[in-house]
Amino acid sequence: MSQATILGRAARGWTRAASATPMVGVVDVLLRGLGQVMLQNNPATGLVLAAGVLVGDPLLAVAGLVGLGSSTLAAHLLGAEHGLIRDGQFGFNGVLVGIALAANLRPDSLLVLYVIAAGASSTLVLLALGHLLGRYQVPVLTAPFVLVTWAGLLAADRLDHLDPDGPGVPAPSRAGTFEGSFAGSFEALLRGISQVVLQDSWATGLLLLFGVLLSSRISALFAVVGSTVGAATALALGGQDPSVVHGVFGFNAVLSAIAVGGLFFVLTWCSALLAVLAAAGAAALTAGMAAVLAPSGEPALTAPFVLVTWLCVLAGRAVPALRPVALADVITAEQVRRDHRTGGGTPPTPPGSDPPPVTR
Amino acid sequence: MSQATILGRAARGWTRAASATPMVGVVDVLLRGLGQVMLQNNPATGLVLAAGVLVGDPLLAVAGLVGLGSSTLAAHLLGAEHGLIRDGQFGFNGVLVGIALAANLRPDSLLVLYVIAAGASSTLVLLALGHLLGRYQVPVLTAPFVLVTWAGLLAADRLDHLDPDGPGVPAPSRAGTFEGSFAGSFEALLRGISQVVLQDSWATGLLLLFGVLLSSRISALFAVVGSTVGAATALALGGQDPSVVHGVFGFNAVLSAIAVGGLFFVLTWCSALLAVLAAAGAAALTAGMAAVLAPSGEPALTAPFVLVTWLCVLAGRAVPALRPVALADVITAEQVRRDHRTGGGTPPTPPGSDPPPVTR
Amino acid sequence: MSQATILGRAARGWTRAASATPMVGVVDVLLRGLGQVMLQNNPATGLVLAAGVLVGDPLLAVAGLVGLGSSTLAAHLLGAEHGLIRDGQFGFNGVLVGIALAANLRPDSLLVLYVIAAGASSTLVLLALGHLLGRYQVPVLTAPFVLVTWAGLLAADRLDHLDPDGPGVPAPSRAGTFEGSFAGSFEALLRGISQVVLQDSWATGLLLLFGVLLSSRISALFAVVGSTVGAATALALGGQDPSVVHGVFGFNAVLSAIAVGGLFFVLTWCSALLAVLAAAGAAALTAGMAAVLAPSGEPALTAPFVLVTWLCVLAGRAVPALRPVALADVITAEQVRRDHRTGGGTPPTPPGSDPPPVTR
Repeated sequence: MSQATILGRAARGWTRAASATPMVGVVDVLLRGLGQVMLQNNPATGLVLAAGVLVGDPLLAVAGLVGLGSSTLAAHLLGAEHGLIRDGQFGFNGVLVGIALAANLRPDSLLVLYVIAAGASSTLVLLALGHLLGRYQVPVLTAPFVLVTWAGLLAADRLDHLDPDGPGVPAPSRAGTFEGSFAGSFEALLRGISQVVLQDSWATGLLLLFGVLLSSRISALFAVVGSTVGAATALALGGQDPSVVHGVFGFNAVLSAIAVGGLFFVLTWCSALLAVLAAAGAAALTAGMAAVLAPSGEPALTAPFVLVTWLCVLAGRAVPALRPVALADVITAEQVRRDHRTGGGTPPTPPGSDPPPVTR
Repeated sequence: MSQATILGRAARGWTRAASATPMVGVVDVLLRGLGQVMLQNNPATGLVLAAGVLVGDPLLAVAGLVGLGSSTLAAHLLGAEHGLIRDGQFGFNGVLVGIALAANLRPDSLLVLYVIAAGASSTLVLLALGHLLGRYQVPVLTAPFVLVTWAGLLAADRLDHLDPDGPGVPAPSRAGTFEGSFAGSFEALLRGISQVVLQDSWATGLLLLFGVLLSSRISALFAVVGSTVGAATALALGGQDPSVVHGVFGFNAVLSAIAVGGLFFVLTWCSALLAVLAAAGAAALTAGMAAVLAPSGEPALTAPFVLVTWLCVLAGRAVPALRPVALADVITAEQVRRDHRTGGGTPPTPPGSDPPPVTR
Repeated sequence: MSQATILGRAARGWTRAASATPMVGVVDVLLRGLGQVMLQNNPATGLVLAAGVLVGDPLLAVAGLVGLGSSTLAAHLLGAEHGLIRDGQFGFNGVLVGIALAANLRPDSLLVLYVIAAGASSTLVLLALGHLLGRYQVPVLTAPFVLVTWAGLLAADRLDHLDPDGPGVPAPSRAGTFEGSFAGSFEALLRGISQVVLQDSWATGLLLLFGVLLSSRISALFAVVGSTVGAATALALGGQDPSVVHGVFGFNAVLSAIAVGGLFFVLTWCSALLAVLAAAGAAALTAGMAAVLAPSGEPALTAPFVLVTWLCVLAGRAVPALRPVALADVITAEQVRRDHRTGGGTPPTPPGSDPPPVTR
């Protein structure tokens, strides 16, 4: 029995257990929420991602889980669409909010309250933006994470509750130099992936990449391409920038490449090229937003990824050269490709016409 | 004859006179515009509110009236929907713009021009945003006041026309301490209400609260709850902050609690809880926006109220747990409740579907 | 044979040649893209505008042409609507992006890459915003130019690639005094027009004005009115500001006056008055945005024009007093007027109702 068959069997067994046993179902939802951090609707990806965060910093891992529970529970209590909850759509913003707040605030009892409130708020923001953007078939992505974390950090800053010794969040800096050895380059590439969960660790990056690979080979490929293109763009534009080594220009490029390369568009040569350009654009925007946010002391978080991907998805719906995928059909890059070949999935709406509103 | 009956008779008599006599009709429209500052479509609320501003600062009261006239006249000249004008929907942003500019600019003849132009501009912004947001059944609230005042203050600042000795607008500060006596707390609560009209006076706050009570007991209750929750949130998050005493964290919480608690949602336990959370969120966002706006020197004004209420209304339309009210049916919290019980009002649109566009 | 007839004949001959010969067709598209910088769908305007930029600074002219080619080619490759490409709608943002980047970045080989990438990005942003705004019949205007240039300058700043000796872009300054002689006033008026292409030269302004006149007498009139009103507003509000002489308060007012005065509304006394107010508002907003952008070092570019015109167009669609023109019918102010008189053009949608989505 080949390895792929074993994995397929395990996946089918887990899915059966999740629908049969409520307790397993809850764990499945939470793991999928973790997997969605890397845009993968896959519990195995979520499990490996949790391990990756734990390896990097156990406190952040706990905060991420509290945020995950808070945001998912809030969606359940508010009666959000069951299918979206089950896909983990209400989890990933909570995870990231929890990690980002724990990395910046003093680790006391108030932090727990902050993370719970912020996690639930991320669900409100997701519902609100989904109502606005669903009509355009534009995904909300990590916009709730970015907005809620900015609000939370600003309030904490104003009310003297920031932790000056916390690990903080990644931001470009100007000191140091980049040594372009092969091993160093590979390490930088993995750090770029690990920064998605606000870590600066090649081991975490390797685990995250492995987690994505469990779900989709196409997405794993674009994660590597994105991190490479992001670092290369920063080097080409800015010369010897040390932040590059720490993956600061990588994580937004990684997410943009995964999203544009095969998820929100069918994988074609055209959309693959757009994914590379999106990764380069995300890296440039990371530098730009760092400059504009510097006075307020706020990190850019995944705002460059959100803006670049919104730009590509919106533009892609206006022209026929790209093949946009209806939000309801975005599962994995492989599934999107199969659906397109067999003519499955929601029929595409012609450019300029009005798609049915979808909350996502 | 009970007091309620007398008030009811007076109200009916006034409404008759307003439709019969054009001159009384104009006064009615202007008074309702004043009442809408507290989200109350009620001329008596408007009259008491005018008295409250006058008690605090006569110059600001005059500027508010000029702004009120300018914005309402502009709506009339542009041919805006008559029903909305009559409800005072084109007045309250003008009132607030007038007060805010007069509090910050040098009191000369140019100020009159500024207030008239800004009042008329607030009507343009209201029409534009109403065209954008009406399709989502989202109210414009005081967004025109915030945007026009920011533009006006920035232009005046750049062109050296600010008054360094003006009363200014409320902003969080870091000096001093809060003494938690009962009388002190009650005074702080009233100051939080008075800050809605940019005043720092418990007497003004008491008059405003009385004005709201004339229109709706539910809204008056949520005004008190909002001011209390806002101050409590600021204290809980930030320790001893002196701005709390002056109601700086109160006014956005007051407006958010009134809006979410019974106006844009039918009053239920669920929406009441959301109103409390919205008040807390508005207070936190007041702190956050103060931090982000500090470099530009701009006050946050009612931007936290607008953002938090938009968030709640948008999210509330995407899930069934809350009972959103069609914009055309938002009159008073009591009326909304009666409509819902008798099955009156516009039938709710199912989540995700497309409501008819309404300019508001 | 009168002069008008000669011009008309030449225009008809050129249009014939452009449809018959592909090479001439390409030149026609590019010239129209240049003409759209002044909101004129006219190749002759484009030719004169190119001459105007060349007179001011040859390097900027070359950069503008590279941006023009890049943005138009990107639209062609992505399969954007052919009619819009032919009207030069995908050219003007590329022209402006090229000029603005060349004015601020070091003139090396990387600049060429920057301009090509930014020009193509402006097409993506145009498609994306067109998809969002087309539904409201709101034109995208120069929003892509503003957003892409901000992103590019911020990235270049962060990555140490700005040219400290470059001509830079116009921004209000506080030094010097204004001498109100007649010749000086006329020169300031022309400089205000030349700042549309980021030049500070009365000769360039005169050429631009002549170019507009070739396309539309109404638009040329409003260009003069806009520049005058913009300068007068700045003087009235701010006293003796030297930036006024250099047209810094003029270019946004010029564009706003052209757009509102006869293009997006049928020319009536009401829309003419709104055009004057829009010009004054654009000048005030220029001052305001300069204040808010000062810490980041970014120029306001044409953001005030975009915001003021969006405001007017959106508000104008909500009230009957103005006569909004469907986007597909916006050609020249004279044509809009003729269409309205003969009952031609797309029938207007009633206020509040849903116009068919148009990508523009």
